[in-house]
Amino acid sequence: MNTANTPIDPTKLAKLARALIHVGLELKPGQELLIGAPLEAAPMVRLITAEAYKAGASNVQTFYTDEASAVARYQHGTEAAFDYAPSWLFEGMAAAYKNGAARLSLVGENPFMLAGQNPAHIARVSKARSVAAKPAMQYISDFSIPWCVAAYPTQAWANLVFPKDTPEAALHKLSEAIFTISRTTGEDPVADWRTHSANLATRREWLNSQNFHALHFKGPGTDLTVGLADGHKWNGGASVTKLGGTCNANMPTEEVYTTPHAFRVNGTATSTKPLSYNGTLIEGIRVRFEDGLIVEASAEKGEEVFKNLLATDPGASRIGEVALVPHSSPISQSGLVFYETLFDENAACHIALGQCYTECFHDRDLTEEQALAKGGNTSLVHVDWMIGSNLIDIDGLDANGNRTPIFRSGEWATS
Amino acid sequence: MNTANTPIDPTKLAKLARALIHVGLELKPGQELLIGAPLEAAPMVRLITAEAYKAGASNVQTFYTDEASAVARYQHGTEAAFDYAPSWLFEGMAAAYKNGAARLSLVGENPFMLAGQNPAHIARVSKARSVAAKPAMQYISDFSIPWCVAAYPTQAWANLVFPKDTPEAALHKLSEAIFTISRTTGEDPVADWRTHSANLATRREWLNSQNFHALHFKGPGTDLTVGLADGHKWNGGASVTKLGGTCNANMPTEEVYTTPHAFRVNGTATSTKPLSYNGTLIEGIRVRFEDGLIVEASAEKGEEVFKNLLATDPGASRIGEVALVPHSSPISQSGLVFYETLFDENAACHIALGQCYTECFHDRDLTEEQALAKGGNTSLVHVDWMIGSNLIDIDGLDANGNRTPIFRSGEWATS
Repeated sequence: MNTANTPIDPTKLAKLARALIHVGLELKPGQELLIGAPLEAAPMVRLITAEAYKAGASNVQTFYTDEASAVARYQHGTEAAFDYAPSWLFEGMAAAYKNGAARLSLVGENPFMLAGQNPAHIARVSKARSVAAKPAMQYISDFSIPWCVAAYPTQAWANLVFPKDTPEAALHKLSEAIFTISRTTGEDPVADWRTHSANLATRREWLNSQNFHALHFKGPGTDLTVGLADGHKWNGGASVTKLGGTCNANMPTEEVYTTPHAFRVNGTATSTKPLSYNGTLIEGIRVRFEDGLIVEASAEKGEEVFKNLLATDPGASRIGEVALVPHSSPISQSGLVFYETLFDENAACHIALGQCYTECFHDRDLTEEQALAKGGNTSLVHVDWMIGSNLIDIDGLDANGNRTPIFRSGEWATS
Repeated sequence: MNTANTPIDPTKLAKLARALIHVGLELKPGQELLIGAPLEAAPMVRLITAEAYKAGASNVQTFYTDEASAVARYQHGTEAAFDYAPSWLFEGMAAAYKNGAARLSLVGENPFMLAGQNPAHIARVSKARSVAAKPAMQYISDFSIPWCVAAYPTQAWANLVFPKDTPEAALHKLSEAIFTISRTTGEDPVADWRTHSANLATRREWLNSQNFHALHFKGPGTDLTVGLADGHKWNGGASVTKLGGTCNANMPTEEVYTTPHAFRVNGTATSTKPLSYNGTLIEGIRVRFEDGLIVEASAEKGEEVFKNLLATDPGASRIGEVALVPHSSPISQSGLVFYETLFDENAACHIALGQCYTECFHDRDLTEEQALAKGGNTSLVHVDWMIGSNLIDIDGLDANGNRTPIFRSGEWATS
């Protein structure tokens, strides 16, 4: 019960903050913490900051983002504003990560904030930022450090997810959905998360024991064979970082995922949920792959933004992740569309355009070139979109084409 | 008139934002802007960001600070949290400044936010931060780049300045005081600032033409001879940056100021206004100098914090700035105590413990060692405190001890 009579239950918010520090990041004494968050998330940042210092953090540095200031670049900016990104800042962050700092990102900004801005400008800004961020992102994509992405319920986001409710009711409903789906409403969220991770580990280890050559997805508008990278490894649940501890990179997370082979993907795929990318909603994506490359692409909404995304660099037209999520996941069962990848990707099986995770190889110390030789894609972007539903069947294929059922009607084929 | 019926007049706020970009910084097309601001100042940061992009900024990066998160370090932090500062961040900023970025800082946080925290912890955190910030501060203290410090009226600050008013009335009064004192309420604040700068330039040039050897301050509790550095130069009003443009480093500013000789200051000085330092209020400061060094120091309130400040490093017990402000300045006439140096220092003549400004030498390209040889102090800190009032007389002394009146009863002796 929310005795404070505010839309967002402060007790549940405090539980989530505590879970992020102790399960999301397993923050260690003396470790620094970098936080990225929308301005509206300040109440949660304060709780997280207090938990971090209690856990012995050397410093908590928060980088706040603000919708109005982000939009101002497009509304008022000149040409100079579209191809520049602050490399000095990302290089600074990379130095912090090199020194062992942890990273926490809170999502929740208005998913549509850039709707109506010039897609060409959005693409230029996004690309400049991706290039500048690469030295810092490297520490995240290879799990050099503990990192975690979680959510804070902002009003703009709540209004979008619950358009028929009053603003206050919408905010309350979104916050409750986040708390439930993030599995932080029980007596002991840390213990609950360990159980959840163990369940994901069981699925992951079964897939690793099968060592499939490829997956075959079959559903409405989708008939897709996804080759898996040589030496690929399935992950899911808690990740072991190169510092030795574990982290839960996404809270919530419901997926097991691995690295596909960037040159062995063939067939067609149709999106089953909207993709919110760079402040624009992309719906009804339909693509055709030939030998890993997307050779045909369309979208019912946001097609120009989607095509700009594919054109970011050569790797943006190939995939770097494939992930399995049962239709019975709490997010899918909520029946909600969150317009936010952290949630929507955990509602359904998905693939990601762009950069692979090198942790999804049995040999974790592969260079980018070595990973590429095994089929691990490389790109400035990593963008998940959903191809799963209650109608999807998935088979595992061995090198000879023998089939093993993995999913039937959106659920694991074996209990 | 404030037609929006909010405590802070949005029209006046927009005028101030515009003045900061065009007079405070004279931001150039293609230039990057770094902003530091309290969270509460977001409405003003948005206006400034829009103005910056209109002026052709390549990027606006805001670093928000938050009182609750800053205090959390002291409330919950372990030993690890008191001697660490994020060098990687300041080195990043230094790289941005090296590349020509401008800097805007908005003050306004609760001046007392650290009251009640352990002074030894405050001193350790402050020192670690000063050491880490030095590479970035260098670009500011030598005017390599345009920079400006201005104010945003926060509720906590307003409550302190107007303790007898309702919160809404206090916020309104503080905001109006800021707008008036910052000279941005007229039809054309840019033109008004140019006139004001010209007046300060007249005073500055007269002082430079006199080339005094020392100043003698005489008032209640103060009998102080301040030797001036060899080759010192008086500044005031707009400053010329090494990039070639001009900036108004403080808005408001009412002072003309120069570099004293760190080893030729003798006598006693008593503070005439409270000093807010590191979230603590220091009142009734009384010090005695011998050959530039503070050999006796006391304060009626906040003495421990003041003595910790003096102990930061050897240069913290010597002075690096002396500034002249007539008692008739708008800030002094407001009769308010702001508990914020940006305002209070512009209400009265003051001296600053610590680092000198190398721009206050005729030869601006002096190294720190060369400046020191001429009497320019070096330190991790630069902290102004007030010794002026309507009772202060100031004489200029030449090398033979001949006197020229500069101030009588707190006003310029010549009109």
